[in-house]
Amino acid sequence: MPEASSSPQILISEVGPRDGLQSVSAIMPLEARKAWVAAEAAAGVREIEVGSFVPAKVIPQMAGTAELVAYAREIPDLTVAALVPNLRGAQDAIEAGAHKISIPFSVSETHSLKNVRRTHDQMIEQVRAIAELVAQQPEEQRPHFEAGLSTAFGCTLEGPVSDDLVVRSAERLIEAGCAEVGLSDTTGYANPAQVRRLIRKVRAAVGDDKLTGVHLHNTRGVGLANALAALDEGITTLDSSLGGLGGCPFAPGASGNIVTEDLVFMLEAMGYDTGIDIPALMKVRDVVRDALPDEPLYGFIPDAGLPLGFAHA
Amino acid sequence: MPEASSSPQILISEVGPRDGLQSVSAIMPLEARKAWVAAEAAAGVREIEVGSFVPAKVIPQMAGTAELVAYAREIPDLTVAALVPNLRGAQDAIEAGAHKISIPFSVSETHSLKNVRRTHDQMIEQVRAIAELVAQQPEEQRPHFEAGLSTAFGCTLEGPVSDDLVVRSAERLIEAGCAEVGLSDTTGYANPAQVRRLIRKVRAAVGDDKLTGVHLHNTRGVGLANALAALDEGITTLDSSLGGLGGCPFAPGASGNIVTEDLVFMLEAMGYDTGIDIPALMKVRDVVRDALPDEPLYGFIPDAGLPLGFAHA
Repeated sequence: MPEASSSPQILISEVGPRDGLQSVSAIMPLEARKAWVAAEAAAGVREIEVGSFVPAKVIPQMAGTAELVAYAREIPDLTVAALVPNLRGAQDAIEAGAHKISIPFSVSETHSLKNVRRTHDQMIEQVRAIAELVAQQPEEQRPHFEAGLSTAFGCTLEGPVSDDLVVRSAERLIEAGCAEVGLSDTTGYANPAQVRRLIRKVRAAVGDDKLTGVHLHNTRGVGLANALAALDEGITTLDSSLGGLGGCPFAPGASGNIVTEDLVFMLEAMGYDTGIDIPALMKVRDVVRDALPDEPLYGFIPDAGLPLGFAHA
Repeated sequence: MPEASSSPQILISEVGPRDGLQSVSAIMPLEARKAWVAAEAAAGVREIEVGSFVPAKVIPQMAGTAELVAYAREIPDLTVAALVPNLRGAQDAIEAGAHKISIPFSVSETHSLKNVRRTHDQMIEQVRAIAELVAQQPEEQRPHFEAGLSTAFGCTLEGPVSDDLVVRSAERLIEAGCAEVGLSDTTGYANPAQVRRLIRKVRAAVGDDKLTGVHLHNTRGVGLANALAALDEGITTLDSSLGGLGGCPFAPGASGNIVTEDLVFMLEAMGYDTGIDIPALMKVRDVVRDALPDEPLYGFIPDAGLPLGFAHA
């Protein structure tokens, strides 16, 4: 192994243990969730969104996330991320020791009301309260606080979402105290031209360093083309899900995060450095399959295999 | 409908009736092949590779291609393309009246020997003889003559294929009399960085106007990302197959052309003008399904549907 790589580094943020598990009806036991996180970190994944801090009666699949965060924190060099829907969730996540917390902000207000039963103004209040709580933490346990602009590329309830509303939402979230915003194609509506355009517009409004990641779905088959468009714009963090597990339970018909295995293949083939060992990553599927035998796992690379003589470009 | 569009036009070249049908073991009756071609042209597809001119004892699925070419020629505004493996096939294709003929040239000589049992030198001889035959035709029935650089992105038998060999092959083919070359990801090995690099290198060697089309597969999930990379380089013709039917029967493990339905969605969403009506295109699947009930048809758009409020960008 070379001591240092000159290839540009891309951070894959695995969201399967959160976005994947909360979308399937079966409940994965906590021990299996731990095994999944451990195996994927061992394959070289450096950031994992391990769960969300929601009441177990609302999303029982996410019960025990605090214990999972505490477990994952012990894994060296792993950034432990968690989703928080509100201030209460943020309090729990910080207490558990999450390195990074993300709150979803639905640019489509209809989707926001359906998903978290809050208006935009109410969400901004939550964000402001969380930002204050984060700022009060001693530096060594202060999490990175992000907001994800859900339905940024269109909404299954409202239809098209205006670029201006995405930009204004990003500005409000940064003003309310988020360190960063991300663009989320919650509904799988995005196309590469739109990805490029929205990244440029949001960055122009809030600064390049305040938009470094995107969350893409492959619902309409263009997920990796959208990822390529985002890379071209200088995005350095891409969310994906092992086996494509997951989607959004409150966006009807929308399913399918981009598949981590396929994304890592594309990036490594192009000469990016993800730090991830593809054969080891493939074996993580067994952990998920053993715990959720009835859930289909997706991915082209697992079916087709790597090209003959494949090597990091 | 607006009288003229200011959107950049992209030509989708449907290859399902050739690449698709020769890859499946079932034989589609000639009448169904005609119905497929007619329905897809009616949906706005302006170029269709309707078949290949090979002996029916080698590929029985392609029997009757001459009659199909004659039928398709009567469809207004449709470019009727055919694949020819050699001089004999070219003679038959010209006699049948094909507007465009393509010969596959495997950059991997191992693949060439396996696929058409000819060395590179022998293939160049065929190309030279076909070019002479084409030149002898009266102008009104002279077909456009292309060569497809098969296995340009890697070979399932040889592994990596060098860029230099692709460039030298392109130069030899143009020198031998092809009007144009295309890059073919026969094996589904390509990645977007390689697509960009090879297009630039080949164009630098033979001229931009001598490489305007690429033939991509989605075997490893990155087919549409590769298409995006090709568009960025100025490629204006993209091959694809309805329902993703097809692949290469002599490249083990390689399957799956990019899906016409998904490609058209991506292009139209990005603001390109393909001239294709997506709902009409979707209905063409019924024609194929009725004639080949046991063949799986792929595609994300057929499963997920168009985004709510979708309109040509």
